[in-house]
Amino acid sequence: MIKMDENFDIEERYIPELRKPAYMLIGIPDAGLVGEIVTEFLISKGIVEEFGQIFSRKYLPPILHVDDGVAKSPLRLYYGKGINLIVLHAWTALPANAAYPLAKLVTDYASRYGIQEIISITGLPVPNRLDLEKPSAYWIANSKDMAESLNGLSNVQKFAQGYISGPYAPILYESSKTKIRNLAIVVESFLDIPDPEASAVALEIISSYLGFKVDVSGLLQEAEEIRSRIRGLMEQTKKELPSYSSGKPMSYA
Amino acid sequence: MIKMDENFDIEERYIPELRKPAYMLIGIPDAGLVGEIVTEFLISKGIVEEFGQIFSRKYLPPILHVDDGVAKSPLRLYYGKGINLIVLHAWTALPANAAYPLAKLVTDYASRYGIQEIISITGLPVPNRLDLEKPSAYWIANSKDMAESLNGLSNVQKFAQGYISGPYAPILYESSKTKIRNLAIVVESFLDIPDPEASAVALEIISSYLGFKVDVSGLLQEAEEIRSRIRGLMEQTKKELPSYSSGKPMSYA
Amino acid sequence: MIKMDENFDIEERYIPELRKPAYMLIGIPDAGLVGEIVTEFLISKGIVEEFGQIFSRKYLPPILHVDDGVAKSPLRLYYGKGINLIVLHAWTALPANAAYPLAKLVTDYASRYGIQEIISITGLPVPNRLDLEKPSAYWIANSKDMAESLNGLSNVQKFAQGYISGPYAPILYESSKTKIRNLAIVVESFLDIPDPEASAVALEIISSYLGFKVDVSGLLQEAEEIRSRIRGLMEQTKKELPSYSSGKPMSYA
Amino acid sequence: MIKMDENFDIEERYIPELRKPAYMLIGIPDAGLVGEIVTEFLISKGIVEEFGQIFSRKYLPPILHVDDGVAKSPLRLYYGKGINLIVLHAWTALPANAAYPLAKLVTDYASRYGIQEIISITGLPVPNRLDLEKPSAYWIANSKDMAESLNGLSNVQKFAQGYISGPYAPILYESSKTKIRNLAIVVESFLDIPDPEASAVALEIISSYLGFKVDVSGLLQEAEEIRSRIRGLMEQTKKELPSYSSGKPMSYA
Amino acid sequence: MIKMDENFDIEERYIPELRKPAYMLIGIPDAGLVGEIVTEFLISKGIVEEFGQIFSRKYLPPILHVDDGVAKSPLRLYYGKGINLIVLHAWTALPANAAYPLAKLVTDYASRYGIQEIISITGLPVPNRLDLEKPSAYWIANSKDMAESLNGLSNVQKFAQGYISGPYAPILYESSKTKIRNLAIVVESFLDIPDPEASAVALEIISSYLGFKVDVSGLLQEAEEIRSRIRGLMEQTKKELPSYSSGKPMSYA
Repeated sequence: MIKMDENFDIEERYIPELRKPAYMLIGIPDAGLVGEIVTEFLISKGIVEEFGQIFSRKYLPPILHVDDGVAKSPLRLYYGKGINLIVLHAWTALPANAAYPLAKLVTDYASRYGIQEIISITGLPVPNRLDLEKPSAYWIANSKDMAESLNGLSNVQKFAQGYISGPYAPILYESSKTKIRNLAIVVESFLDIPDPEASAVALEIISSYLGFKVDVSGLLQEAEEIRSRIRGLMEQTKKELPSYSSGKPMSYA
Repeated sequence: MIKMDENFDIEERYIPELRKPAYMLIGIPDAGLVGEIVTEFLISKGIVEEFGQIFSRKYLPPILHVDDGVAKSPLRLYYGKGINLIVLHAWTALPANAAYPLAKLVTDYASRYGIQEIISITGLPVPNRLDLEKPSAYWIANSKDMAESLNGLSNVQKFAQGYISGPYAPILYESSKTKIRNLAIVVESFLDIPDPEASAVALEIISSYLGFKVDVSGLLQEAEEIRSRIRGLMEQTKKELPSYSSGKPMSYA
Repeated sequence: MIKMDENFDIEERYIPELRKPAYMLIGIPDAGLVGEIVTEFLISKGIVEEFGQIFSRKYLPPILHVDDGVAKSPLRLYYGKGINLIVLHAWTALPANAAYPLAKLVTDYASRYGIQEIISITGLPVPNRLDLEKPSAYWIANSKDMAESLNGLSNVQKFAQGYISGPYAPILYESSKTKIRNLAIVVESFLDIPDPEASAVALEIISSYLGFKVDVSGLLQEAEEIRSRIRGLMEQTKKELPSYSSGKPMSYA
Repeated sequence: MIKMDENFDIEERYIPELRKPAYMLIGIPDAGLVGEIVTEFLISKGIVEEFGQIFSRKYLPPILHVDDGVAKSPLRLYYGKGINLIVLHAWTALPANAAYPLAKLVTDYASRYGIQEIISITGLPVPNRLDLEKPSAYWIANSKDMAESLNGLSNVQKFAQGYISGPYAPILYESSKTKIRNLAIVVESFLDIPDPEASAVALEIISSYLGFKVDVSGLLQEAEEIRSRIRGLMEQTKKELPSYSSGKPMSYA
Repeated sequence: MIKMDENFDIEERYIPELRKPAYMLIGIPDAGLVGEIVTEFLISKGIVEEFGQIFSRKYLPPILHVDDGVAKSPLRLYYGKGINLIVLHAWTALPANAAYPLAKLVTDYASRYGIQEIISITGLPVPNRLDLEKPSAYWIANSKDMAESLNGLSNVQKFAQGYISGPYAPILYESSKTKIRNLAIVVESFLDIPDPEASAVALEIISSYLGFKVDVSGLLQEAEEIRSRIRGLMEQTKKELPSYSSGKPMSYA
């Protein structure tokens, strides 16, 4: 049991052996559950496997996730040996007051394992989501240097001007303070309907960015099933995060 | 008077002499009052008898339970010599903020007496409860090893995938951190109607699991009386625990 | 000025000379103001007289009681030399968060003066109060030994099974922890209408219990006047104590 | 800058030279703004002049009063050299949680300057205020000795029995604990309409009590103008102090 | 990274070289966003450029401003070399509980850089805003001496009597305590519609006061575009600051 700080304990079954450069992907419930669906997909396909759980009496609600008969913390760690990736996945909506402390924990944990870059995936609610053939994706960096290095990316545009709020915002903030890179992929999505199509767009970008192969088509084929399965999580998320308002990309004069 | 921690005092009239392995059964008001009805039944039949009470200025509401003219804490300890069992029974609904501290207290107390396994009984609200001939029962363990040892249990299935929330969730969490086994029996039940039939299913499982005999039929014959007697407790419980949502068993791909 | 603890100061004009065994009667606003009306009656008839007041910035509301042109704390101490009794009387409703700290103060003060038994009077709201010729009275003790010694009491029955909540519950709790006897007399009453008839029943029991004589008929003759005089206090009390639910006497199997 | 305690700073431009016995008059928004209008009248007529302001990050709202182009704390100190009087005047409604700390500050400040008596003016809301030719005035003292010395006062009656609540109540309480006299003049008034006529009654009593002359008729002639000018303050005051209930004078048996 | 106090960190890319006397202009969302629009205009025209950002886990909401693909704190510092001015600009509404701590930070930061005068721009909501040809402007100083030195200003009148509330009020308060001058320019404006015309009036006054030239006409030409661009910020601001009530200028007798 690692005591990360006074509010979080981490239990790890083993220490993942990461090659440099190492990445960490965060899947926390948010608009459209876009990131959440990506990390759950990696878990369900066996691409990453569980090696730890994170406990917090103060910041986690009194709810446990039951997995094959075993009650576990809803906040868990997964490791993809083949793709050299650590995943943090939350099986439940997190209370809004957990946003800053969790971001601190993520950054501290990333430091501990020499993670070079944290990757976040979030949704950008757009009113005309239904009319979009394929949702657009944008990137946000947490430093000017990093932004310059990202300018060459294809199939994802720069998020030029606007706002990002919700649980991923404090991670950009904390990682910037400790000089760990944080890439946020923002995909146009529904606000309060799980959006596997947006997740597929994000997963394509991430797999190409990290250089691994994954059959994204599964996400699209199982879209309806996924949507019904995590309807309850979407409901919880709506309640916990009433003030989602990651702004639309826009440019000033 | 034992000072367990800064918030709880325990008054014991005597120290129960437990044989190994020893068990502790928890009855706290919850969905359908399923666990509560089981422990009250053991008390009312004289199978366990009172030997202590737990005080807390911070976590118990300003309400006392009067028993034969004597005002007592609503949170009390009972001992069944014949069945080698300690029972913690709450005569009142507990405030939601008491869930974590009480779970810590339960685990500390279990450690003190060398309890090998904590047993919890809770309800799993299902919308079609009225149509069920006999409610199904599921088990949840708090470690993988324990789950493996339970796979042979008859008349109770594994809770494959889902969530458990409410006052029993933090007990699974705390006991897992201190390596004490915690078995949660989850029985399909009403949400806000006391459900003695579900309690009878749980009691059958528990008595068989612990190896003692009890005439469960009493629970069914007195169902109507029990229901009217604890209507007030059900009302209180509904108010304190508005967000019950222990998920339905389900399996992911 | 006595500093009882960090939150309460007591100002006494003199030290009452109590004979053994000494008693202390508590009158705090509660269901039907049953206890409150009894202690106010003893004050208004000159049977007890003021000798102290209790100050608290934290637990008393910003309200003072004006008595003959002098502003005083609404929480005051009275002494009946002839009847060897200390009375604590609150002239205002007390906030719910004051219940536990006040109970601690009452118990500490009782210890200081060698009080053998604290006596509380409270109402037991019954829906058919209007139909009752004479409301019934019940007693509650705070220990098994005390309950046995009370079994012989006439004109008041044992409160067999149920609950007591509100400001008198923590006094039973705190006094039990310090081994001071606490007798609670519970009389069937209205919930939110001042109930001098219930108070008269309680006063008869108390005077017989303590062995003094008092003309209870005054309470009944002035019932209408009392009711209109303390209507405001009843309103306040209703707001502060919304969750009164001292259960009806009942017996389990 | 005087640091009175951890929550209040006082800035004084000079130290008023008070003759014995010295008095301090308090004008804080309250029912009918009765005291507030009196102290504002003394300020506007130049009878007292500003010499200090009181700062508090914790107990004053983020609002400043602008006086002749200069932003100042809304809580200020004035000195009437001719009438040997210090006035504390609040230009804004004070939050309810400031009542006890401000009373402590007033008492500490009064001690520092050897003030012999604090004078408060407040309104007593009566439903038939419109029908009153001239509102009646009552006095409240904060000790029995003081009450006896006031019995001879003409044109103001003793407040026989009842309650005083709101911001002036804690001043009576704190000053009584430190043995500083506090006279509260209570005048029948509107509850939530500024009441200059009630203020005129209070000012007449105060000027006669302190032995200075003031043309009270101004207050009556400007009544309409005053009322419209401080309408906004009345609105604020209503919000901050919802639970005004200084009881009507009444006598018990 | 400068740790200003326990709640704020400041990251500066370089240290601006200020000439004496140096000024600091504050643009925080407020009534009509009058000050906010002025500082955003200076930023968008390149008159000032970013050199730092201010972090706070406690006082900033979990929202980041994205600028050219880079996520940054919404509270940032800008420096206008040509006009010898530091600008603090907030890209998001600030929670009301941040008002006092931010004012302290502003004052501490101003001390650190030897700033002689802090300049604030705020709106004065008037109901007849639509009918005004050109909104009037008023000044508020934070000391009597400063007010005297401002009496000669043309095209801006003294704010004679009234109130100033909202985020600019605590800055007047804190700066007055540390003897730094603070000039607040208050322009008649809409309450909850962004008001670039009012901002143009303020900018004209400020540029003339500080002795630099700026083409204010841009603000008027782009008024419609500005209004639609910051509609979201106006919505946020309305929610965070519900109790805006900077009083209308008025004179007492």
